[in-house]
Amino acid sequence: MSFRTEILVAWGDCDPAGIVYYPNYFHWFDTIFQRWLLSRDLSQAILQQRYGILGTGILDTGAQFRATAQDGDTLAGLAEISDWKAKSFRVDYRLLRGDTLVAEGHETRGWLERRDGRVRAGVIPDGFRAALG
Amino acid sequence: MSFRTEILVAWGDCDPAGIVYYPNYFHWFDTIFQRWLLSRDLSQAILQQRYGILGTGILDTGAQFRATAQDGDTLAGLAEISDWKAKSFRVDYRLLRGDTLVAEGHETRGWLERRDGRVRAGVIPDGFRAALG
Amino acid sequence: MSFRTEILVAWGDCDPAGIVYYPNYFHWFDTIFQRWLLSRDLSQAILQQRYGILGTGILDTGAQFRATAQDGDTLAGLAEISDWKAKSFRVDYRLLRGDTLVAEGHETRGWLERRDGRVRAGVIPDGFRAALG
Amino acid sequence: MSFRTEILVAWGDCDPAGIVYYPNYFHWFDTIFQRWLLSRDLSQAILQQRYGILGTGILDTGAQFRATAQDGDTLAGLAEISDWKAKSFRVDYRLLRGDTLVAEGHETRGWLERRDGRVRAGVIPDGFRAALG
Repeated sequence: MSFRTEILVAWGDCDPAGIVYYPNYFHWFDTIFQRWLLSRDLSQAILQQRYGILGTGILDTGAQFRATAQDGDTLAGLAEISDWKAKSFRVDYRLLRGDTLVAEGHETRGWLERRDGRVRAGVIPDGFRAALG
Repeated sequence: MSFRTEILVAWGDCDPAGIVYYPNYFHWFDTIFQRWLLSRDLSQAILQQRYGILGTGILDTGAQFRATAQDGDTLAGLAEISDWKAKSFRVDYRLLRGDTLVAEGHETRGWLERRDGRVRAGVIPDGFRAALG
Repeated sequence: MSFRTEILVAWGDCDPAGIVYYPNYFHWFDTIFQRWLLSRDLSQAILQQRYGILGTGILDTGAQFRATAQDGDTLAGLAEISDWKAKSFRVDYRLLRGDTLVAEGHETRGWLERRDGRVRAGVIPDGFRAALG
Repeated sequence: MSFRTEILVAWGDCDPAGIVYYPNYFHWFDTIFQRWLLSRDLSQAILQQRYGILGTGILDTGAQFRATAQDGDTLAGLAEISDWKAKSFRVDYRLLRGDTLVAEGHETRGWLERRDGRVRAGVIPDGFRAALG
């Protein structure tokens, strides 16, 4: 995949069953994406300033959980763009502990603008596409 | 749908774009489900004690975001079981602000047991099915 | 105390010890304060627009935990202003389950402005003081 | 100080003011402590198994915020034990971005046991004290 980072599972990320409370996986998907932007000298704040957008907001997302993770686990977080459309793109994620696939998922992110008081998707500029390509 | 509750969006649920940080929608899906259990005199703790399971863990989940929500919004949270399988069931969710659909999604929950040190799905007892039916 | 609301403890608010993960108490303190603002037709967004401030940011905070809380508990959340200074104010909080005090704490909130690229405290206008008085 | 680790501030850790939502600082304090345990081949789970306790639960905590932090910041997280009592101990924390102190705080942690259905503090064994000493 195109980007790789590390996620440390904390005690506070886990629920009374002793395993990761699942919404945290989406926090990690988003965090992997933001670190990917940072590695390209980009961020939501820079995208807002440079392109006047609200951000790369989520239109659709999903995940499948293959194994449990818990306090103290170190996970490899992998991401790649699996689809570019005119106004949105899809990011695929995988989280692994060693060779064990813990979770996989995706986010479809829209190039969101606030126009006439409404939030809607605009056309993604080539420069952004190239930065993550 | 089968169960209805209310979700209050807090300032701290929102991100620098001023709208709900999307992993919170999954926290609300889970919270709606737990409140549904409570309304049937059930909870994860009671299920653990009564049936010896780890819990009703998430195997697969997804969401589509239709409108933004922000600090101070009151959302109606709706849930229903859309599919019962032998060892898992699917819960569908809708979050609305007035008539506006903000988010919809689902969770496929497995009847998770810890056997021989591994987590695996067991057969859902009729009593549980009847409680949410 | 001056403001009262209700906090529902969710499964996902609890940690592997089966009790509330303590940072959530601060999320609830903040949420109680934001609901108090809403009850006075105020919000962080309205304060930003009306007074040009960054918000009522936290300078100092603390809490003492007196009893545990868990999934399904309903807590009464109480707040009052215990001190007004020129540029900051102190909010005291109590969370109770029935007659049992679960947690108490405080936030010292500054009237934060961004001036010359730096964040600093400004003088609180009388109108704001009156709204919460 | 006695232990040092790194905290990466994520987009989702920040609120509509664009700065870290303050309850996350307490999540980081707790996370620094748990990583410290892990560095000593300990964890809440190991403490539970070895000593039969519920955990090292928080009795009292507090923080002062000196500077803001935001998406993409890397913070140094420092911790030390500033006081050992028979049944509790105090951990002091500092979070810095380069030379800038962002936040400092403390946790008073009790050696919590569940006895006769109640949670109370027991005497800390020498072995634990030595591990963090």
